[in-house]
Amino acid sequence: MDSFGSKFRVSIFGESHGDAIGVVLDGVQPGLPLGIEDFTEDILRRKSGPKGTTPRIESDIPEILSGIYEGFTTGAPLAIIFRNRNTRSGDYKLFNDMPRPGHADYTASVKWMDFNDPRGGGHFSGRLTLPIVAAGVVAKKMCVCDVRASLIEVGGMSRTEALATLTDEDRNGLPESEIPASVIWKDVIANAMRERDSIGGIVECVASKVPAGLGEPFFDSVESLISHAIFSIPGVRGIEFGDGFESARMKGSEHNDPFDNVEGGDVSLHLSVHPSKNGAGGVNGGITNGNPIVFRVAFKPTSSIGKPQKTFNFAKGEMDELSIPGRHDACFALRTPPVVEAMTAIVLADLMKRI
Amino acid sequence: MDSFGSKFRVSIFGESHGDAIGVVLDGVQPGLPLGIEDFTEDILRRKSGPKGTTPRIESDIPEILSGIYEGFTTGAPLAIIFRNRNTRSGDYKLFNDMPRPGHADYTASVKWMDFNDPRGGGHFSGRLTLPIVAAGVVAKKMCVCDVRASLIEVGGMSRTEALATLTDEDRNGLPESEIPASVIWKDVIANAMRERDSIGGIVECVASKVPAGLGEPFFDSVESLISHAIFSIPGVRGIEFGDGFESARMKGSEHNDPFDNVEGGDVSLHLSVHPSKNGAGGVNGGITNGNPIVFRVAFKPTSSIGKPQKTFNFAKGEMDELSIPGRHDACFALRTPPVVEAMTAIVLADLMKRI
Amino acid sequence: MDSFGSKFRVSIFGESHGDAIGVVLDGVQPGLPLGIEDFTEDILRRKSGPKGTTPRIESDIPEILSGIYEGFTTGAPLAIIFRNRNTRSGDYKLFNDMPRPGHADYTASVKWMDFNDPRGGGHFSGRLTLPIVAAGVVAKKMCVCDVRASLIEVGGMSRTEALATLTDEDRNGLPESEIPASVIWKDVIANAMRERDSIGGIVECVASKVPAGLGEPFFDSVESLISHAIFSIPGVRGIEFGDGFESARMKGSEHNDPFDNVEGGDVSLHLSVHPSKNGAGGVNGGITNGNPIVFRVAFKPTSSIGKPQKTFNFAKGEMDELSIPGRHDACFALRTPPVVEAMTAIVLADLMKRI
Amino acid sequence: MDSFGSKFRVSIFGESHGDAIGVVLDGVQPGLPLGIEDFTEDILRRKSGPKGTTPRIESDIPEILSGIYEGFTTGAPLAIIFRNRNTRSGDYKLFNDMPRPGHADYTASVKWMDFNDPRGGGHFSGRLTLPIVAAGVVAKKMCVCDVRASLIEVGGMSRTEALATLTDEDRNGLPESEIPASVIWKDVIANAMRERDSIGGIVECVASKVPAGLGEPFFDSVESLISHAIFSIPGVRGIEFGDGFESARMKGSEHNDPFDNVEGGDVSLHLSVHPSKNGAGGVNGGITNGNPIVFRVAFKPTSSIGKPQKTFNFAKGEMDELSIPGRHDACFALRTPPVVEAMTAIVLADLMKRI
Repeated sequence: MDSFGSKFRVSIFGESHGDAIGVVLDGVQPGLPLGIEDFTEDILRRKSGPKGTTPRIESDIPEILSGIYEGFTTGAPLAIIFRNRNTRSGDYKLFNDMPRPGHADYTASVKWMDFNDPRGGGHFSGRLTLPIVAAGVVAKKMCVCDVRASLIEVGGMSRTEALATLTDEDRNGLPESEIPASVIWKDVIANAMRERDSIGGIVECVASKVPAGLGEPFFDSVESLISHAIFSIPGVRGIEFGDGFESARMKGSEHNDPFDNVEGGDVSLHLSVHPSKNGAGGVNGGITNGNPIVFRVAFKPTSSIGKPQKTFNFAKGEMDELSIPGRHDACFALRTPPVVEAMTAIVLADLMKRI
Repeated sequence: MDSFGSKFRVSIFGESHGDAIGVVLDGVQPGLPLGIEDFTEDILRRKSGPKGTTPRIESDIPEILSGIYEGFTTGAPLAIIFRNRNTRSGDYKLFNDMPRPGHADYTASVKWMDFNDPRGGGHFSGRLTLPIVAAGVVAKKMCVCDVRASLIEVGGMSRTEALATLTDEDRNGLPESEIPASVIWKDVIANAMRERDSIGGIVECVASKVPAGLGEPFFDSVESLISHAIFSIPGVRGIEFGDGFESARMKGSEHNDPFDNVEGGDVSLHLSVHPSKNGAGGVNGGITNGNPIVFRVAFKPTSSIGKPQKTFNFAKGEMDELSIPGRHDACFALRTPPVVEAMTAIVLADLMKRI
Repeated sequence: MDSFGSKFRVSIFGESHGDAIGVVLDGVQPGLPLGIEDFTEDILRRKSGPKGTTPRIESDIPEILSGIYEGFTTGAPLAIIFRNRNTRSGDYKLFNDMPRPGHADYTASVKWMDFNDPRGGGHFSGRLTLPIVAAGVVAKKMCVCDVRASLIEVGGMSRTEALATLTDEDRNGLPESEIPASVIWKDVIANAMRERDSIGGIVECVASKVPAGLGEPFFDSVESLISHAIFSIPGVRGIEFGDGFESARMKGSEHNDPFDNVEGGDVSLHLSVHPSKNGAGGVNGGITNGNPIVFRVAFKPTSSIGKPQKTFNFAKGEMDELSIPGRHDACFALRTPPVVEAMTAIVLADLMKRI
Repeated sequence: MDSFGSKFRVSIFGESHGDAIGVVLDGVQPGLPLGIEDFTEDILRRKSGPKGTTPRIESDIPEILSGIYEGFTTGAPLAIIFRNRNTRSGDYKLFNDMPRPGHADYTASVKWMDFNDPRGGGHFSGRLTLPIVAAGVVAKKMCVCDVRASLIEVGGMSRTEALATLTDEDRNGLPESEIPASVIWKDVIANAMRERDSIGGIVECVASKVPAGLGEPFFDSVESLISHAIFSIPGVRGIEFGDGFESARMKGSEHNDPFDNVEGGDVSLHLSVHPSKNGAGGVNGGITNGNPIVFRVAFKPTSSIGKPQKTFNFAKGEMDELSIPGRHDACFALRTPPVVEAMTAIVLADLMKRI
């Protein structure tokens, strides 16, 4: 099923080249101020445009069909849709016969017995992350936490290394925190594009101002819910919290986070105590401990590449060479930080409603 | 909530030092042959005993209260319980005042307003992985896949490195695949124990004979469901599928898996085609592609260590030193492979029922 | 939450006077032929128009945003919307101060802290049964059962009694089964309208060609699921299966249904045996027994009446008299048979997918 | 699936003649005082013993396996089991060949492919209402409402009629409210037993002190959830709220409930206003309105009767005569009021947690 959440439920629908894509949000509390303009920033951050992203440009203006009255959420479900306009479906007919390596062409055909909509990847398209970003905008208002994701590595080059390659002209007078990822890693991106190949990246997400006590001991641990949501983003290959995989190489005495009265407040209410370091990434026993939730997500390189690849040609019954035409992101990871934030906020909004 | 699954639903209950722990399995199909003896092997693999695991030894014999008739599952829910016997609750009183770093003592108190059972970690204990292993035994029969997990790294030392340190006496005439992990990594484990410290490890899981077409495009992608279940195991810090985090450093042309008629059969039925390499770990677009599902899980070092640690003493209102007495695993990762298998089989059993 | 179903999930959204109302259908199998024209008949049956129904007329043409490709369902979620056009919101402002007896004006305000959309009842409007009817059209195709609902009583007069009042002119040459309910009960309806009052009715639903073996022993018994869905229709006050309330006055020897080889086929497959009478309404122990599912639903009289009523005036802080202006159904029960069918088909489609 | 509830989840298991039956309660808040003695009253009310109930007597003492610590709920799941002791399985072998009219023998066989446990009805037994009553005890503590159910009609005779038949000796000095149902209706029960037949009854349930604002507009309307739970009790044939089926024969002006400042308090907080009559049974638009929730439930006559009945004999391949031996309730409805209360409290406890 394409829905997620228990008290705040997100249901997405649509196909890349269909009439519209969208999302229904059930369980939004009444009284949140909400307007079209609230969606602008995150939708813009997800949008293509800079080098390394697809030239398909959509207006991506949300149409809110329900759940808002006089500028506030009503308590009833919100339905938000986005019309698809800039579609060129001719590009995709070929992949019925020759499933693209790394794509869902083949698995969608098996699952849905060849009735799947093949145009632009149909329902399996990364375009469906747009309604997810829209859901995230509402979720961020609901969860009252501060959720921030950004790229820390692209094409195997860390942000620090990449920043070191920039000229003053590249930096354009901006503070480092505001230089766009497409500028920071412009060389590795340009290299990949030149080779008609693609690259991946790693996003780090930090959710702060999260109250202690959210989550459940086992099956709905905070990490379970967040990883569930994050692996629902196309192209994710791994996730790790706090010290992550490195923790498996640490001693307990190194990895354990000592509790401390970090904020120096009244300890009788348990509110000012939390760990003084964050190897656990903000969660003990599945429950938030008052520290920021910190995790990293590995995004694979874009599957669609212009460079010729081998794949099976079902029409010919033999292996064949495929050069994928059309418009792709050389590094779709550039567009993922708002999607990672959205998924995190969706989980936190749900957890806040379960208190 | 402490339950998981949509068509095959697993609900666990119990506390480490309570009367019993157990699990209810709803949605088991009728007609599966099942007896106590089916549980022996996996329960034994999870059990403590070898060096590096806790000296608390429980008989761990399952009592099946319902759902079986004349040796077969009936279709009605199975309830399986395990009595707790070898408990020494005196060990744990201290942690009300001084929450153990890395443990859920503090977060459980916050979440459950100090009504949580503190004895042996209460409901947050790793002992709850025993009913999960029991659920896995049933799930393995249901999913008809072959699920195998094993340690590939302990305390930062790879299996290959560790095997190279073994004498003939250590090997005891066994083929490498049958040498216990506690023998293979005996030196790093002994080191940690000597320092009254602990170490972690990395488990790799391979699920083969999984049919193509399982899973859902977004929120119930195979990786979403597996990661959800895996992060419900205490002590997990990361998970990665196929090429995992390394994929973020690869080119698309390297990471993409070409489809091929690997089994040389009749391609018209789509059954003999799958990718000829497995960088994706067996899943494209959230749906299984016919390849084995492959993923790795990072387990942190055991939180309980004898070595003195700092933590906040709520009774004194200041930082204090804590040396955790009692019986712990120096490396609980040694006991996790059957738990990882169980969680994977639980997900696959559910997915098989959704077809 | 405004969604229902486990394997076939229906999520509705929208407000009576908002931009659009709609439904997302998740879990529709791929390959069902489906077009706009499939919706015409049931939408028309639900529509207002005849005497006794509201003069608000909407075009009610469904717009299918997703999940269809080249005339077949794809397996991805269907989103279907209906634009609201013929709205006159001025009618409803008054009810903020004076909650209409029998309506949700008051309870919606309490639940949603006065942020609810009051126009036309907002999300609580009977207009939301339109997307439910649309969902039913798809569900009927999925469940391959034959679901038929019709009025058996209106305003306290049985169908037989009412038919006896008809002249040849009323009958207009039609066979009894095709005479519209608004004609059959035209006199009681006309009486109610004259008094600016309203009347209710009883609908009987028969689902035939339902295979034996659907449903669950306790919480998801067939009656549980059907009653859950039926009480989600606004205005339902009761439901009874088979002999219903009358069964409480029968002896076991009268009410019990003897099993018999009714169809005279091969009994070894259990397929031709089912009860020879149907006091149970097609269900034993929560599971279908091969007989038609039969139940009756009581609909209250329309809440909105022109006749003056007392209610509390919050602005004045005292009781006041209210004559509801605007456009209402004198007997909304006339429009409910396709809604009852839709809800039944939604349950059956879900149960068929759970097999 | 045999579980119910979203935030407070009840999962039942067990067979009539298996080792034990039981229930897992997930989502119970921490800090509720709870002990074995809390269960005594409701379990006793459900118990057999008086004339008209089965002579099978079980001790029915609950064993709480988890979720309680030092007399309070901990927040972790409660598992409660009841051992089966007084079983005579020989009685039931026959029904494999000759399915009892009105029972689930046949439908269970079809659903579970003859692997169902036939002893005492297996999982389909009314004995499973015992763990439901246990769940209700906890739910009543959680929901802080006052839930009371009692018989208003047995074997077609109303309580008033039946009371008129009682002698002073029958009344035994008790106030009418405390005379047991088995005494009030002793004559109709004795008649049924003499004929080796059975009778049904009607239970009325009133839940008072329910806050306004519980429930959801459509699919989780209060009536939807209550009817879902009530039809999960074996033997229910109908349910109606407030004026019920009679409302279909009323005018809107009669059925509508005027809002009024019934409690004469400060109306600005909406808390003292609710309807001055209760034709709706406490619910408008699916949401509680502050009035008591009132509904009636029809229970069929007990299916098992000693009187010979016709049914199909699968071994012989023809119709045959069946006289059911063994121990039955002539009127199981006598034992249902605490079960109806339990189901209602389960729904209300869940709704209270969803606020």
